[in-house]
Order: sequence, then structure tokens, then C-alpha cells
Amino acid sequence: MTSAGIVALDHIAVVVRDIEASLAYYTCTLGLPIVSDEETEASGGARLVFLDAGNVMIQLISPLRSTGPIAGHLETHGEGIHHLCFAVGDIKGAIAALVPEQDVPVEIGGRGRRTAFLPNRTDGVITELTETAARIAPSD
Amino acid sequence: MTSAGIVALDHIAVVVRDIEASLAYYTCTLGLPIVSDEETEASGGARLVFLDAGNVMIQLISPLRSTGPIAGHLETHGEGIHHLCFAVGDIKGAIAALVPEQDVPVEIGGRGRRTAFLPNRTDGVITELTETAARIAPSD
Repeated sequence: MTSAGIVALDHIAVVVRDIEASLAYYTCTLGLPIVSDEETEASGGARLVFLDAGNVMIQLISPLRSTGPIAGHLETHGEGIHHLCFAVGDIKGAIAALVPEQDVPVEIGGRGRRTAFLPNRTDGVITELTETAARIAPSD
Repeated sequence: MTSAGIVALDHIAVVVRDIEASLAYYTCTLGLPIVSDEETEASGGARLVFLDAGNVMIQLISPLRSTGPIAGHLETHGEGIHHLCFAVGDIKGAIAALVPEQDVPVEIGGRGRRTAFLPNRTDGVITELTETAARIAPSD
């Protein structure tokens, strides 16, 4: 674990318009197994599919509605890699270490875990934190 | 290993204008150790710094010259996540499985490994393969 409490990279998120259309490439061509397929009210509402790349997850994320940050990103940037998410043991402690004196909202995100997006940085890398322990059972 | 020969996700590449300026965030703030710092003639010439996120590498990549695919990406898209790179045992076999009947050039990339970028897909995810065994010693 790093000084900021980072345990590992949890997932890389790929924004897609249509998860069904994108899944065949990841499952059939690349051969990655699906670990979780769920909907969340975090990030303005999204369907999340987690695929196991062996050492890290790839998350396909598609907005449930035409508004919100994921839909807005699709509109502006199109499909593609959206963010990195680091796994941390204590999300409040990691936020305090990484962005002290900033108020960062914590939501329940994928796999029932507490998650938070860090404030945007100038280098364009959108960064999320997820707490390793689930707080609620994910909705399948 | 998947049917396409994917062993794991090797790294996520982040394109930056100035590696020195970006490194402090990854090393001091996030606390990730540097594994490798080298220059390659692959991808039109680039400096590559690999950081260990515990289970996967984050690669900072900065162009050595004002032309080439990395410089062009910076010009068009600015800094940000550039590509995913999967580790494979046999790069020729993986290319044949993933993009049969396509001619994909193989270069010596980071850490002295054989690497190849797959043809661009419509979903905007730039995808590289890297062979797990190094063919030459990386230049430090």
C-alpha cells in the first residue's frame, strides 16, 4: 500500500454507447470473463459490466439516461477509455491524503463499494477511488 | 490465459507533455514507485516511465519529437489516458487470434519487449500488445 493508501489499480473504465454491442469484443475476441453486470445510481446512473483481465478489471460503462457525467462525456468525446480507479482500504483517509481540504462526495458505486471521483486534474486523467470492502450487495 | 493468449493487463499509458512535471503527482502524491525510465524508437520515439500500481503498471509516455503518433495525439487530444496494453506470451499468435488476415507491425518497445498496436477500433480504445519476455535489455 502506498502512502496515500492505494492498494492496487482496481479497474480501467471504458465508456460505450451500447454495452451489448461492445461486450462481444471483450468476451469473445479478447476472451475476458464477466465478473459483474449491474446498474448504479452513481455517476448519474449507469450500467456497469466488469470484465476480469487477470490482474485488474476492465469496466464497461454506459449511461442509463441522456443526462449526467457519463452521457455528457459520450456526447463530447465519444466512446473510449474514461477513467482509472484505484482500490483503497479507507476511502476517507485516501481522499484526505490525496486532496486535503477539498470536499469530495462519496457515493455507493459498482459492486456495492464506496467510491469517489477526485477533482479533475489538468492532465486529463479522470481518477476514481473505490474502497476494497463492499458496503452493500451489488444489484444484479 | 484467455483464448487470445492474453495473460494480464500489462499497463495503462498516459500521454503527458512533460514527464518531469507529471512525475511528482504519481510518485509523491500517489506514492507509486518508478520501475523503468527509458527512451524507445517505437511509436515515433518516446520517453517511457513505468510506475508500479501494485498489480499493473502505469506508463507515462511523452514524445521525443514534434512528429509521430504520440505527438499527434497530444496535439489533437491533449494529455490523458492513451492506450491499454495487454501482456501476451506469444505476440505473433495473439495478433493472429485477434486480427486474423491483418498485417500488424511488431516493434521493440518499452522494457525491450516486442510490442504491437492493434488496428484502431471504432470504440476509441487504442490497444497494444506486449510480449512478456524481453528480447533486448531496455535502455536506461
